[in-house]
Amino acid sequence: MKVSELGQFGLIDRLAQMVEAARDERATSWRNLVDGIGDDCAVWRPEGLNVLAKVDCQVQNVHFKFDLVSWEDLGWKALAVNLSDIAAMGGRPRYALVSLGLPLETRVEDVEALYRGLLALARQSGTAVVGGNVSGSDVVFVDVNLSGVTGNPQGRYLTRSAAKAGDQVAVTGWLGSAAAGLAMLSGKLNVEPPVAQFLRESFARPQPRLEEGLVLVEKGVRCALDISDGLLADLGHICQSSRVGAVIKSDLLPIRPEVRQTFGDSSLEMALGGGEDYQLLFAAPEKIVAGVRAASPYPVTVIGEIRAESPGEIRVIGPGGKSYRPQRTGWDHFKSR
Amino acid sequence: MKVSELGQFGLIDRLAQMVEAARDERATSWRNLVDGIGDDCAVWRPEGLNVLAKVDCQVQNVHFKFDLVSWEDLGWKALAVNLSDIAAMGGRPRYALVSLGLPLETRVEDVEALYRGLLALARQSGTAVVGGNVSGSDVVFVDVNLSGVTGNPQGRYLTRSAAKAGDQVAVTGWLGSAAAGLAMLSGKLNVEPPVAQFLRESFARPQPRLEEGLVLVEKGVRCALDISDGLLADLGHICQSSRVGAVIKSDLLPIRPEVRQTFGDSSLEMALGGGEDYQLLFAAPEKIVAGVRAASPYPVTVIGEIRAESPGEIRVIGPGGKSYRPQRTGWDHFKSR
Repeated sequence: MKVSELGQFGLIDRLAQMVEAARDERATSWRNLVDGIGDDCAVWRPEGLNVLAKVDCQVQNVHFKFDLVSWEDLGWKALAVNLSDIAAMGGRPRYALVSLGLPLETRVEDVEALYRGLLALARQSGTAVVGGNVSGSDVVFVDVNLSGVTGNPQGRYLTRSAAKAGDQVAVTGWLGSAAAGLAMLSGKLNVEPPVAQFLRESFARPQPRLEEGLVLVEKGVRCALDISDGLLADLGHICQSSRVGAVIKSDLLPIRPEVRQTFGDSSLEMALGGGEDYQLLFAAPEKIVAGVRAASPYPVTVIGEIRAESPGEIRVIGPGGKSYRPQRTGWDHFKSR
Repeated sequence: MKVSELGQFGLIDRLAQMVEAARDERATSWRNLVDGIGDDCAVWRPEGLNVLAKVDCQVQNVHFKFDLVSWEDLGWKALAVNLSDIAAMGGRPRYALVSLGLPLETRVEDVEALYRGLLALARQSGTAVVGGNVSGSDVVFVDVNLSGVTGNPQGRYLTRSAAKAGDQVAVTGWLGSAAAGLAMLSGKLNVEPPVAQFLRESFARPQPRLEEGLVLVEKGVRCALDISDGLLADLGHICQSSRVGAVIKSDLLPIRPEVRQTFGDSSLEMALGGGEDYQLLFAAPEKIVAGVRAASPYPVTVIGEIRAESPGEIRVIGPGGKSYRPQRTGWDHFKSR
């Protein structure tokens, strides 16, 4: 059935039922919710010392194409990219509002699949979906607004502007896997099934590093962000906000063996500029980074150092100790296409 | 200059400067803001007993066309439609996040004009713009997420589901003016300048009824919403949520003389089904409505009554006391085009 046959209010009713079925009273978000979908606004009781809020949008033909991702993936990813920003502040997610743009001929089943993907990650992360909007549009877009709270009694959180000369630069998980997944899907490469699944999920089903964000705050880290635009672009944001420079060593970058084997030398470029890994990038004194590594069950890798000289600039030391000039340094929505 | 020449981060910098210039320390929102634009999330201190949140989107060729509204109008309206929902809950607006979809060839000056319109209303309403997103897109869209707080010490707010049989149905301001404005602009009617300006602004620069929403809560009203889809459609939402029926009298509908004179008999249809008036529609016992009328400097008109019979249905008594069958009952995004 097309959304034009069901109508706006019929579609909202169906989505509201899916959300109601996903209600989870074990989650603080749902317990503090006073009124969800169905009135002019959602209503909830505030908590904590600081509220965190973020909006991020997935637009058809810009962020995704339906020959590469499914509707269910799209729903997952639209929430994941926002959760990743809450993780990057060291916060806990609470409430999501979902604004959809849908062409008239969109199938209702596809919109339900989108919500299935989104609600699966909402449940996993303790996020309550409490409202939204559906609108006609020539292209599909999913704009998710997410709020959260700081996850510690002091209301502390992580900023981009707190890096200091001498800090180590470290990253959670692996780099370049999402770019490798996109390259595989776009090029329809023939990759062995288990590797193909890993690459596909790295691109289409990113796992926001919420637990790791909480560990960072707890262990005394002050400076972090999530890698969405690409390692170099996002480290650049830290360097600009903190008015420092940075040096990173390509040999230290955590790249999965499957990615190296499948893409060879390109894997380094994928790790430096690929983007969409949604890992956490942070800077802190050596002792604090060691504390994070000891406390985190998930891998944490030191990849370089913050420097006082050349504020805003990043030097990459390539294989063999020579300066390396990356081909691509990140993603700009209005320039890169 | 086009946004593709300035780039995503250049554009964000310009918009952030405009927002910073609009900062207003007299507003509670700005005083409670800890971190605005520039990090992974916005950060603010929570307040009040209940948080209110809403998202609403303006999509090109669906909600607006640039031959009828200017970029500045669009910015105003994108915030106004959300403020209207906060008003309809009897709340005070606090924080807005703005998600923009922009074609590559969009002029930077136009995006700045959009922000001028949005920031003018933000300042007027005490709303702090604290973040957002800019993305490429084939069509322009402006998705605004707005949060607020309940405006009274008890945390009370207005819902759609609190209408009771015997309540009067009342409305703030005038009905049909926005539809008349759209009809004038679309038909390029020749209307006298002062009337033309009134009609144009009714459509392009709606004034959210925030003060009136606070008066409603204060005077003991429990049931309200804002008229966005049209009087009949929105009263229908109240009737469905409250499981009641309603009768309204067309003779009582507050229609401006200018609208009656310009559009004759069509003005009744505009008042019943036109939509986008962003007035408040509420239901309450006679005594409470009288208290609201006495306290509000803005007009409040009783237009009908809530009935126990025929839940979900609305009867319109037309000119001469006969039942009147409206031609159009409201707007559905996926059905009405």
